Formats: sequence, C-alpha cells, structure tokens
Amino acid sequence: MKVSKFGGTSVASAEQIRKVAAIVSSDPSRKIIVVSAPGKRFSEDEKVTDLLIRLADATLNNEDYEAELKEVVSRYEQIATELGLSDEITQSIENDLRGRLAAGYSDQSLFIDSIKASGEDNNAKLIAAYFTHIGMPAQYMCPKKAGLLVNDRPERVRALTEGYNKLAQLREVPGIIVFPGFFGFTKDGTLRTFNRGGSDITGSIVAAAVDAELYENFTDVDSVFAANPNIVDNPMAIKELTYREMRELAYAGFSVFHDEALMPAFLKSIPVCIKNTNNPSAPGTFIVKDRDHSNRPVIGIASDSGFSTLFVDKYLMNQEIGFGRKLLQILEDEEIPFEHTPSGIDNISVIIRSKFLNEENSERIVRRVKEELEADEVRLRTTDYSMVVLVGEGMRFTTGLAARAATAIAESGANIQMINQGSSEVSLVFGIDKKDEKIALKSLYKEFFSLIMI
Amino acid sequence: MKVSKFGGTSVASAEQIRKVAAIVSSDPSRKIIVVSAPGKRFSEDEKVTDLLIRLADATLNNEDYEAELKEVVSRYEQIATELGLSDEITQSIENDLRGRLAAGYSDQSLFIDSIKASGEDNNAKLIAAYFTHIGMPAQYMCPKKAGLLVNDRPERVRALTEGYNKLAQLREVPGIIVFPGFFGFTKDGTLRTFNRGGSDITGSIVAAAVDAELYENFTDVDSVFAANPNIVDNPMAIKELTYREMRELAYAGFSVFHDEALMPAFLKSIPVCIKNTNNPSAPGTFIVKDRDHSNRPVIGIASDSGFSTLFVDKYLMNQEIGFGRKLLQILEDEEIPFEHTPSGIDNISVIIRSKFLNEENSERIVRRVKEELEADEVRLRTTDYSMVVLVGEGMRFTTGLAARAATAIAESGANIQMINQGSSEVSLVFGIDKKDEKIALKSLYKEFFSLIMI
Repeated sequence: MKVSKFGGTSVASAEQIRKVAAIVSSDPSRKIIVVSAPGKRFSEDEKVTDLLIRLADATLNNEDYEAELKEVVSRYEQIATELGLSDEITQSIENDLRGRLAAGYSDQSLFIDSIKASGEDNNAKLIAAYFTHIGMPAQYMCPKKAGLLVNDRPERVRALTEGYNKLAQLREVPGIIVFPGFFGFTKDGTLRTFNRGGSDITGSIVAAAVDAELYENFTDVDSVFAANPNIVDNPMAIKELTYREMRELAYAGFSVFHDEALMPAFLKSIPVCIKNTNNPSAPGTFIVKDRDHSNRPVIGIASDSGFSTLFVDKYLMNQEIGFGRKLLQILEDEEIPFEHTPSGIDNISVIIRSKFLNEENSERIVRRVKEELEADEVRLRTTDYSMVVLVGEGMRFTTGLAARAATAIAESGANIQMINQGSSEVSLVFGIDKKDEKIALKSLYKEFFSLIMI
Repeated sequence: MKVSKFGGTSVASAEQIRKVAAIVSSDPSRKIIVVSAPGKRFSEDEKVTDLLIRLADATLNNEDYEAELKEVVSRYEQIATELGLSDEITQSIENDLRGRLAAGYSDQSLFIDSIKASGEDNNAKLIAAYFTHIGMPAQYMCPKKAGLLVNDRPERVRALTEGYNKLAQLREVPGIIVFPGFFGFTKDGTLRTFNRGGSDITGSIVAAAVDAELYENFTDVDSVFAANPNIVDNPMAIKELTYREMRELAYAGFSVFHDEALMPAFLKSIPVCIKNTNNPSAPGTFIVKDRDHSNRPVIGIASDSGFSTLFVDKYLMNQEIGFGRKLLQILEDEEIPFEHTPSGIDNISVIIRSKFLNEENSERIVRRVKEELEADEVRLRTTDYSMVVLVGEGMRFTTGLAARAATAIAESGANIQMINQGSSEVSLVFGIDKKDEKIALKSLYKEFFSLIMI
C-alpha cells in the first residue's frame, strides 16, 4: 500500500480536489491519503491556514470575529458547492470551528494550534465526504483515534514512535482513509501542531507506521531539479536521489521537502516519491536508500546565503587541549548552532547562520572568546557569505572532482573563501561571497551537467 | 644588539667552536651567545646530552657510573685540548658534574634535569673560557643569576615573562655573554629544562627580554627550503618568511625550528634569522612579521603523516545545539588534542594525530560517542593519513589558487580525502592517503615553484 500526501495547492479548490480523486482512484494501492488545508489558488490568494491565524488573533484580542470566521467557512463552502456536496458538510465545518472558538483557552499557543489544525482537519472531512459522494469507499480518520502521538510541551513537537503500533492498524481499515496532516495529540489528549514540515511530516510518520511500500508526496512541481531554476535555465530533473542527497540539498536551499519530514520515512527505509498533482503522469523524483550513481557523480548543486564567520586566532592554539570545545561552549550558552568549523594551525573559524546573531549576542560572544580563551584575535564577519554545495553519492569515488569544482568556480571569477570536504561522503561545500553565488553556481552547473554526449 | 644561538652540531668540536668564535668576532653586535651542549660530530656520534642521560640512569640504578662520567668529561677534555685551553676548565667541569651527582635527589626527574642541563651549562663555560683565551672579552652567564625564570611543576615548563626585566639588564653587561641554553630556574631556585625546542627557546626568550634587533639561530643548513629535500630534488631556498608561515610549515613537518621556540620572539616582533655555522656568508632565512608576498603566493609546501579520523554521523545532527561541543568534550576527557573538524550536514569528522590513540582509548571514545551522543554511525579510521599543507601569506589574495592546487594533486593520481580552507589566511590543507603523500607533494611543488621565467 501507498501513503499519498497532497499539499496545499493540490487541495486548494474543487478543481484540484477532483484531480486528487482521479489520482487516488487510478491506483488501488493508494489507501491512505494525507491532506493539507486548502492552499493558494493563485499567487495573491491567501491560504486557509493564514485566515485561521487571523481568526485566532481576533478571538484572542476579544474582537468580533464573525467576519474572519465567515471568510474561512466560505472557502470550504465554495469548494463543497462546486463539488456538488450538500450544505451539511459546510454546516458541520462551521459548527466545528464555533466549537473550537467557544472552548476558550487556558493557554494561548494551544488555542492557536487548535484553530490552525482545523484547516487540515476540516479539509480531510470535506475530501472524505466528496470521495464518498462520487462512490469511492472513503472515511475521514481522526489522528487522535488513529494514534498519532506526540511528545509533551515545552519540548519541540515530534512524533512518538510508541504510537506506531496503533497507527499500523490503519492497514486493516477497509476503503480509503483521508487523514489530516499537520497535527497530533499528546498522551493526555492535547492537540499540538508540527512547527516545521507540516503535513509532509504527518505523511512520513503514517507511511513509516503502516510500513508503506511508497510515500507519495504530491505537490505542484514535476520533480526536484539539479539546480535552482531561478538561477540556472532549464536545469535537469532528478529521477532518483538518496535520502542523504535530499537532506544535503534541502539544507542548502532546496525547499521541495522539509528535511525533518524525511526522518520517519528514512528510519524505516520507505521510498518517497515527489509528484505533481497537475501532471500525475510525469514520473516524479524518487528518494531512496541507495541508487546507482555510476553515470553521474554529482546529482545536484544547491546554494544558500546568510552566513557569518567567527574567526579566532591564538598562537599555539592547537597545543591547547579544550580550546575548540570551550569555543563551541560559548556558542551553546547563547543557544546558537554552528554549520562548519574550518581550522588552520593557530586559528579556527565558526560558520554560523546570520539569523541567529544580533548586536547583543555578537558583542557578548566576541568579548567572551577574547577574555575566556585569551585569544590574540577575534573577528565576527557578518557580511553576507554564501555556501555552494555539490551533492552526490558518486563523488567519493571520483578522483579529481574537487579540482574540477574549484576550477569551475575560479573560472567564474568567484573567489573561494572556504572549502569543506572530508567528512560527508556526499557533499563538497564551498564558501564564497554572496555577490558571487549565482556566477559560481552557473559555472558549476555547466561543468557537471552540460556534458555533451557524442 | 643581536642574540646568536648555536646549536649542537655548531659547538660539537674544537673545529666548530673556532667557527663560532670567528662568526661572533666578525660582528660586534653579536653580544649574547646562547649555546647547546656538544652535539654529534658525525652521523653515528653520540650527543653529550645522550651520554648525560646514560650517566643519570646509571646513578639512579645505583650502578658504578665512573665509565659514563669519564665519557662525558673526555668529550669536553678533547675539545679543550684542541682549543689549547689548560686542564683547569676540564677539571672544573668534572667537579661540577661530581657535585651534581653527589647532591643526591629527592625527585628523580629533577635530578635528570640537573644532569642533562650540565651539558649546555659546562659547554657555555668552556666556550667563554676559549673566547677569553683568544682575547675576546667574554664571560659565562648563569641563567639563575641572569633571571631566566620558569614556572613551577607540575605544569609543562615555560618561561615567566616577569623575569624579563632582570634579563634585560644583560644589555648593560660589557663584553660578550655566553649563555647556556635549555634550562631555567623556578622562583625557589629549582632547575627545570625545556621539554621541547631546547636551546632555541632560551635564545628566543633572551632575545625577547633584551629586545634584540635580531635573533640569529645558527644550525647546519643554509636556509629553510620550500619543500622537503628528501622528497623534492633541490628545492628552492626561502629568503624570508613570516612567523605565521614558519609556524604552519613547522607544524606540518618542517623541523628546522621548533614552533614553540618562536613564541617569545614572535610576541616581541623580533626578527629571526636561520643561518649555517659552516657557511656563515650564506644569507640564511629570515623570519619576520611582514614580508612582500606579491611575487610568490605560496612560500612552502609541507607534509606530515600519522593522522587518524573519527567519523560521526547522525541524522539531523546540525539542528542539535551542543553536538559538536559534546564530541570535543569526550576527546578532552581523554586528553586528546584534535587537528581539524571537517563537517557535512549530518556528520562531522575529527582529525587526530594517531600517536594520541591506543586500543583502549579508541574503544572508549567510539563507545561514548555512540552512547552519549546517540550517533547513527561512528568510525575510527586509523589507517595512515597524511596532511599536505600549502603555506603562503599571498594565498588569500590569489583567486584560483585552491583550484590549481587541487588540480595538481588530482593530476598526480592522488585522491583528495579532505580539504580544509577558510580559517587560516596563510594555509590550505589537503588530507590524502599516506601512500600518495610524495607524489602529491612533488606535483604541488612543480605547480607552484617550477615557473619558467622568460
């Protein structure tokens, strides 16, 4: 059986939901359908989730929220009407929302979670009703009933694998299951939403729990591309890539799939397929455990900007046991994660995402490193720095690849500020000035993907 | 004024000491002469220091030590005789040694320090006597009297800068001062020897304290070379390099000057000159604060082997604040320093000198990383790994240099396992298999030093 997740744009309108029904009915192994809240129908449109956040805010501010409520309900109403469903479903959605609003709140953030989660929950009910209406055997499944357990606050929300056994029983449910994405329940029954990855992560959890043969992730692109289409013209589509490759690409700017969402599927070695709801016959991109990488060592080139560098120099540093650890401790005290730590003999640099730095913590970090580590020199360089990452499982088997990549960057005129190779077997990272990011990426793409076949 | 240090081979025999006298008298600014114990006169010869260690061992084992004592004394006696000195100096050296042996010991290691240090101490007395004998105004200077203060045990021995004020008064002493290298005294008068860098460090300390215009380090090579002459035929001699360049080269296998010995001179910006006692008219190699690096971005290529790699992989590692710090903490608990930490997205490698690892601590490290950090994969790769380091102040101003270097290595057939660039402004480090070290170094030398001038 397959678990198929449909993202916001795939379930944004009656027209889109008809496509979903066609996709699901075309393959009897598509048993569990995970759905998002209705997304944007056109680029200036608002997602239902954003409407729901406005509704929750109005309520928390003790304002009259009837206008906001109506806006949400009318989105569902329009879909239901166009799908030929009776008023009953719209009425039940409005009742559900009024119930959530009237329930009041002891905790504002849990209240917002409950309102936001209604977007997916009610869409799942609506889609199940439509499937039934057109004769497909389908039912809505409540995540609480199904056993999608999450951890308690204040930890960042994540699924508890102890819920998997109960979720696995979904295999035995006859017909099609329509499952809302984005939220789960703690053991004491409190609803919590996933901060990141949203419905993708629900699909991944369910696929892992039921041990699906495939986790399909339907979105609005035909496939994952070898480079950012906004920078490189008509980049090649990737047919197949490994979890590790996807993770490295996602880290450095590929936004198709949130990396955290891959985790449950990865741990159970469930293959994932990224497909396009608007072009379901396209083969899509498969994310798998292993692939044949003999013909192409590099599968993709990603880039991301917004990095800063903390440079620390101290004569004879490398004879000082504990220096590196103390430096990282100072960052940890400020709750700042780091990306890379290139080092010389007497110096070390720490590459940090600039979003974690502000004037206050920067000043504190520089001062503490100077004073506590007795460094000769400490510099925090916050001018924008980009990382360009070459990703591919075949790279480690290819002599001379780093030379080709460095030459391609040099020929583009970009100056390489940093190279990090040697730990990851699937990536090679170059640090360059942000202004050089595009020319470097284009040049690398040309080097590794424009091979003329004769 | 200049401080001139003469190493073991420069003061190994009467013939060599005559060269030293000629060098010193040829330049009136050579005021303070720091000397080693007599070194090897030919390649199978034994250093006096090694004879002294045997003497100390015999004493500690309660064996008859007259034979060992005689061997030491006869080395001085031969030198004194050939220099035309009276028996008086040999007798005083024998008396000094018998006094040290008779003093007994409450602590074996301090006793060994005292016996070993006699090598330099007595040689300084002998050389001062010779200088006086040939009419040069000279005197032996005891480090205790001069104020060469060192820290107390059990810390690793190092000079205390609070002694510098007293040492600075050496400027006012008339005539030539002959100062023994290798040892100093704690505040309570206990003799301690420098573990590493020996007499080089004494020269560096004295040069710093008296604010010398130049610290000359006389040895048995004409200069520092751009690459190891045992690997590259007739490598270029380096006329001038910076402290930072010297430090990076020394770290990666250049053994001319122990890096720790540079520290005192470096901190006071005192230029250092490496010269050859056997060819004093050769210009030697200057180590300075700044140099003009416009004509040659790379000044030297060093390499060293004996590295191991600890590889740690964990899915979503880079979102886990504190992961890197905890990893380094485990190494710190084992008192193991690390060299570099290349990292991917979900993995990090720590490069460690293999000499710090044994079966026991390796097992402990791997187990702790697995258990405490809940890593998915931990591998300690102890097969021999080499580092090849390109050094040069001009490198950071040269676009495409990393590409040229990586290409040169790739063309040699060596596979690059690691690249570390981005922190040090003066070095670029490549990790390769030890078997490829020589071919990679030759190829890099050819790329950066065989420029044909037309």
